[in-house]
Amino acid sequence: MLDICLLGTGGMMPLPRRWLTSLMVKLNGKGILIDSGEGTQVAIREAGLSFHDIDVILFTHFHGDHISGLPGLLLSMGNADRTEPVTLVGPKGLERVVGALRIIAPELPFQLEYIELDEPEKVLLLEGFEISAFKVNHNVICYGYSLEVKRAGKFDAERAKEQGIPLKMWNRLQKGEIIEADGKVFTPDMVLGPARKGLQVTYCTDSRPTQSIINHAKLSDLFICEGMYGDPEKHEDAVKKKHMTIREACEMARAAEASELWLTHYSPSMTRPKEYLKMAQSVFPGTVCATDGQKKVLRFCDEENTEEA
Amino acid sequence: MLDICLLGTGGMMPLPRRWLTSLMVKLNGKGILIDSGEGTQVAIREAGLSFHDIDVILFTHFHGDHISGLPGLLLSMGNADRTEPVTLVGPKGLERVVGALRIIAPELPFQLEYIELDEPEKVLLLEGFEISAFKVNHNVICYGYSLEVKRAGKFDAERAKEQGIPLKMWNRLQKGEIIEADGKVFTPDMVLGPARKGLQVTYCTDSRPTQSIINHAKLSDLFICEGMYGDPEKHEDAVKKKHMTIREACEMARAAEASELWLTHYSPSMTRPKEYLKMAQSVFPGTVCATDGQKKVLRFCDEENTEEA
Repeated sequence: MLDICLLGTGGMMPLPRRWLTSLMVKLNGKGILIDSGEGTQVAIREAGLSFHDIDVILFTHFHGDHISGLPGLLLSMGNADRTEPVTLVGPKGLERVVGALRIIAPELPFQLEYIELDEPEKVLLLEGFEISAFKVNHNVICYGYSLEVKRAGKFDAERAKEQGIPLKMWNRLQKGEIIEADGKVFTPDMVLGPARKGLQVTYCTDSRPTQSIINHAKLSDLFICEGMYGDPEKHEDAVKKKHMTIREACEMARAAEASELWLTHYSPSMTRPKEYLKMAQSVFPGTVCATDGQKKVLRFCDEENTEEA
Repeated sequence: MLDICLLGTGGMMPLPRRWLTSLMVKLNGKGILIDSGEGTQVAIREAGLSFHDIDVILFTHFHGDHISGLPGLLLSMGNADRTEPVTLVGPKGLERVVGALRIIAPELPFQLEYIELDEPEKVLLLEGFEISAFKVNHNVICYGYSLEVKRAGKFDAERAKEQGIPLKMWNRLQKGEIIEADGKVFTPDMVLGPARKGLQVTYCTDSRPTQSIINHAKLSDLFICEGMYGDPEKHEDAVKKKHMTIREACEMARAAEASELWLTHYSPSMTRPKEYLKMAQSVFPGTVCATDGQKKVLRFCDEENTEEA
């Protein structure tokens, strides 16, 4: 079960009643935040989420609207008595950028650990997630992220019995342990059925459409993508500023065969994104014009999905 | 006429419905902002004020809650097409701190000019204001600011006639010009009555009570002061963290004989500052528990004051 909250839906600058785009994803009490613009810490409070659950922060890129809230967020996490380390992931230069911003947040009661990306694609295993970072196409180095939760097969007692695996090992093997005993090696696949479909959320701001985004969003349960402009006349602006129109985001969702698309990172000039929803759904029916604080619980395929907001 | 807007009333961190403490003061289309924490740019929009009117930004000190919103604010001022220079004033180190924060706002369409303070008191003449910066007592170097608008005497035609000042010079002298003609020097005081009472706003966060604050707030039309804690049991915390209680702020307002006191910079733990208003007014009757976006127009003594919010 994956708890998802899109904390804000704005691009460029925070506005009254529209926070900057940022995503929180929680799995088993561990949390991943993507981006942290000015005001994200307030959006976290408004959404009723806890600073304690932020174990990893992924940055798409270093434009102000995606990272300016970091020093304040770190201070508030410190004030909330966090002591466990926090892992920061982002493009090359991350430690230098964060170091500069920390001139106003020099003392924190927790360690920061940095993972800098400099390859076109990279897979990270963090807090139970398989995180794929992939380069997109913006006017500075920028990454999209796909967060996957893999799911092992069901426990199969019949198979375990057939192979004569001692009962006392069943539980440990089911939890993924490899056991050596009596000169034999026992592995989890010996007691498990075939792997089941996991969960996948793919996130991309800011970028022109790219094949890498489609590849990574492929069959995602949820694809969250910028739809900076709705008006078709803004297409030229989108090309020039290396952003995307709503139509382009929808075309990518369709090509990726995602289950659902949440549009976000709206231009301040687009005051009513829902004006473009009908057009968007004509391209990709599963499109949602996301709003601040939009939540969703993704459950594994043999559970039921629940929309909360 | 001085337009005053207290953009936020929070201390430490921005909260839902409570922006960080920051003040905007406008005189004849020129504006001075004091402090710029995370979200101040949103508070400016909510208050219906313009980014164009920010000509000077005064910083009390470099704790995150007083300066973390600067990079985003500067970017938004740039997006609003400001091209005139902006003057930044603050404790020594200002240029280094702002330079570090500008790692995410490196390109601006306007110049920044820096005035660093390293003396206990300093008077600056900027945009029609006489600004007195004075050191206060916090756990880092911190300044309070008193903003005065001086007011010349009334034009006195009788005096001008008595002294035989040519009619064509009257208007220029009234506007403050010094004129040399026919081997004589004509000065404004020759056509003006005695100086009239000006307007004064004094601002102080974060500090323990000090005599310097009382001296600078003396007879101020408006004294804006932190009242971090209301509960008398928090006095020890206030001493330790070098902040002030509401009672202490009121005692200073009384000693300074200010016309009105606005309390601000409330601790996040103090959810309802108005619980302490009665106590506060028993110490200083002119106390107001300020709220976000509180506005006031201060008019010269022969005009009428109007409370807007």
